[in-house]
Amino acid sequence: MLYLTGSILALFLFHPMANSSKKIKEIGEDALINRITKSLPLGKDVVAGAGDDCAVIKSNDPQLYVLLKIDCVIEGIHYMKSTPPSAVGYKALSRAISDIAAMGGTPKHAMISLSLRPECNVSYVTSLYHGLSKASSPYNISIVGGETASCGKSGTPSVTVSLTGDVRRDRCCFRSNGKSGHSLFVTGKLGKSLNGHHLRFTPRIEEAQWITRKFKPSAMMDLSDGIASDLPRLAESSNCGYSIDTNKIPRSRGASIQEALCDGEDYELLFAISSKNCKKLEVAWRKKFPNLTLTRIGKLSPEGTADPDLKGGWQHF
Amino acid sequence: MLYLTGSILALFLFHPMANSSKKIKEIGEDALINRITKSLPLGKDVVAGAGDDCAVIKSNDPQLYVLLKIDCVIEGIHYMKSTPPSAVGYKALSRAISDIAAMGGTPKHAMISLSLRPECNVSYVTSLYHGLSKASSPYNISIVGGETASCGKSGTPSVTVSLTGDVRRDRCCFRSNGKSGHSLFVTGKLGKSLNGHHLRFTPRIEEAQWITRKFKPSAMMDLSDGIASDLPRLAESSNCGYSIDTNKIPRSRGASIQEALCDGEDYELLFAISSKNCKKLEVAWRKKFPNLTLTRIGKLSPEGTADPDLKGGWQHF
Repeated sequence: MLYLTGSILALFLFHPMANSSKKIKEIGEDALINRITKSLPLGKDVVAGAGDDCAVIKSNDPQLYVLLKIDCVIEGIHYMKSTPPSAVGYKALSRAISDIAAMGGTPKHAMISLSLRPECNVSYVTSLYHGLSKASSPYNISIVGGETASCGKSGTPSVTVSLTGDVRRDRCCFRSNGKSGHSLFVTGKLGKSLNGHHLRFTPRIEEAQWITRKFKPSAMMDLSDGIASDLPRLAESSNCGYSIDTNKIPRSRGASIQEALCDGEDYELLFAISSKNCKKLEVAWRKKFPNLTLTRIGKLSPEGTADPDLKGGWQHF
Repeated sequence: MLYLTGSILALFLFHPMANSSKKIKEIGEDALINRITKSLPLGKDVVAGAGDDCAVIKSNDPQLYVLLKIDCVIEGIHYMKSTPPSAVGYKALSRAISDIAAMGGTPKHAMISLSLRPECNVSYVTSLYHGLSKASSPYNISIVGGETASCGKSGTPSVTVSLTGDVRRDRCCFRSNGKSGHSLFVTGKLGKSLNGHHLRFTPRIEEAQWITRKFKPSAMMDLSDGIASDLPRLAESSNCGYSIDTNKIPRSRGASIQEALCDGEDYELLFAISSKNCKKLEVAWRKKFPNLTLTRIGKLSPEGTADPDLKGGWQHF
């Protein structure tokens, strides 16, 4: 058995470092997740646990992996009280779809947990579900479960989405297999997402499936926290460094380089691909997706190098 | 295709009744869920969507169904700020395990979404994960994903669990197949859960698997909102009424009949079984589970009958 016994697990969880009196905001989300989830016992059917865009599980079908994702949006953090509820629903589900895209997968079944104030209007919920349906229908995702709970009169509403998907094993794209020398690409334009993009973006399902089928990137992820946060994550997962030209970062209208690097919520794809395939990819891309830019921003480099040293991006705590 | 198009779906969601200015607390959770989720388009692989303890999906393995569940616990509602975080984690995951049990299933993979204040100590999170591990380890559940988000300084923390499972198709037990005349049983004792049971209960996985293997109940659910809420739900799903002797309801130490009916958070099993198998079940149960009571409380009756007319139970809004 690969499972650890409870007592060995307790040693991990109650490790002197883990049992720290530090605040989460002092160590940040990445360190917290690393500290906790990497010591959890996983079954033999788990291909990848926490740390990638989705968890990856062996399916009964030897050709497929199952993908699992959980994600939440919180009022006052990811949307405002004044945000139209249909936009909240659309965003909540589309974020999870974007993570399925990042693995090259196809989204399948969604479940929704709503935490709402008791004073909330029924029409708010129906409109929120209209947004969920708008996000699900292009992909024929079935919304198979919904629970609602009261967060109390003065509580903070939130929408948590759990989404399953699947992907052919030979097309599943992790963050962790990037190779030094591989070229880095991003889709679309980055920055200024709060102008509206964060509520209206299209998850890159079609593009990701096309890329993984035709060019099999060595590493891929979706850009949710800003490339300044996310590129170092992809590089670290792949035991690589990176070298990019920040002048080449594709910018949304009016966005500065800093904003394109750090604003976050772009939900575009970042991927690495063998440099010998770059030209072929660029030509094929323009033909297939004439309305979506694809930009080569630099390459992965040997571990320990970072040019420039990126700082910033969305910090969860 | 079984999927509805977006525009037909919009007709459902923007039905004059749905687009009501009523508050959620005026119509309650059941009516809300009915109103919204039952009109959602479902794929052909969906055996049961919202409305049972779990969603039920066809697996690639023709002998199996996949079970999906999402559930959240909220500070101030399901646990207190002062509740030990390991107990919060244990409860959060055990509630979802109890729903997998209610279908006769085996829990498999869990994902955890934590919404926490930035001031939260790292030790709180490690302790919460210790509780999650304590709940997962008896069943070899893999915790394959964890995300954390800030709910803001004055926000309401919560823990959302998404859990997958599977069940042999011929042993999957829905709420909806109960038959008039079938006898109703509950496991364990009910009421006064807030004395501590709600943080320490054992999900009835072993018992449910044994019952579904040996006696195939016609309907089963777990008791989370109190039998006064949950029995009418099971009866309605099965197009039945019910007739029970409230004096027979097994009560926890010190619990009144009213408390046993309405307190909720018992996480025991309620199931219906052909009356000709009752004696055999009772004898076999005592041998197999000598430390857990099994009580025959009454039977399902023709639709439209309800004896007594049960009121109360936990109201989410």
